[in-house]
Amino acid sequence: MLYPATKVTLIAEHFLVERVCALIEACGGHGYTLTPVGGKGLHHLHATSDRATLVEGFDHQQVEVITTDRAKAERIAERALKELFTNHSGVVYLESIEVCRRERF
Amino acid sequence: MLYPATKVTLIAEHFLVERVCALIEACGGHGYTLTPVGGKGLHHLHATSDRATLVEGFDHQQVEVITTDRAKAERIAERALKELFTNHSGVVYLESIEVCRRERF
Amino acid sequence: MLYPATKVTLIAEHFLVERVCALIEACGGHGYTLTPVGGKGLHHLHATSDRATLVEGFDHQQVEVITTDRAKAERIAERALKELFTNHSGVVYLESIEVCRRERF
Repeated sequence: MLYPATKVTLIAEHFLVERVCALIEACGGHGYTLTPVGGKGLHHLHATSDRATLVEGFDHQQVEVITTDRAKAERIAERALKELFTNHSGVVYLESIEVCRRERF
Repeated sequence: MLYPATKVTLIAEHFLVERVCALIEACGGHGYTLTPVGGKGLHHLHATSDRATLVEGFDHQQVEVITTDRAKAERIAERALKELFTNHSGVVYLESIEVCRRERF
Repeated sequence: MLYPATKVTLIAEHFLVERVCALIEACGGHGYTLTPVGGKGLHHLHATSDRATLVEGFDHQQVEVITTDRAKAERIAERALKELFTNHSGVVYLESIEVCRRERF
């Protein structure tokens, strides 16, 4: 009923999100979830010390993709870092989770 | 100070969210957190290839419930799949976490 | 390429978020991600049974901070509970994750 899987979380500026999604699909990801987020320390390009502004502005999106294939998860993270986040800000991390309906991931 | 717990994440279309919350309460869940999300591959009913639209539209909600009772977490996931997500789209997964203030979960 | 890290999640009412962020920085956190959330059972002060309202209103924010220093993660959680959430509602939990680009956390 429950199967081990890996969730890859990628946080990117809005203008990069389409490319993040395209990369996930190119790596064989079967879907993703998008959440509007903001924060501090996400970007090195235009860091700001105005905490109030950051609290208000959700200028990034969090993209989450789940896969039961650990190698695929690592490939998505690795390619995102190399192809998208070298010149742009972004955060990438992996979490171990358990999914139902294994065939969907 | 820190206690092992399980977080159940359920992603559902807006119209289903009230039923997801009612099911959590019926299973003895003590609360939940709601986040607006969008995505691709969340629904099999009206899948679209228009990535731009998906990036803009947060038409789903992510419902997270935390419990220190692993069996309760599995029951919520199992019932949601059987009672809500058989005919509707949705994603369900479990994560192992550590909570403070055990008595609140 | 991938390094073990800890993600601390803190959910607080809007008016507390700036103090949560200041506390993270005071503990040496290098950044954080903010997500608008709502829910039930988040606050003991003004609990409501109106589920529909809760589904609509994202009156809390989720603050996530990642660190490769487990002790720092615990210190953030402990201080938030003692200094911010004793008199105010809030949820705090830790997750084990894996990060790329270790030097950024």
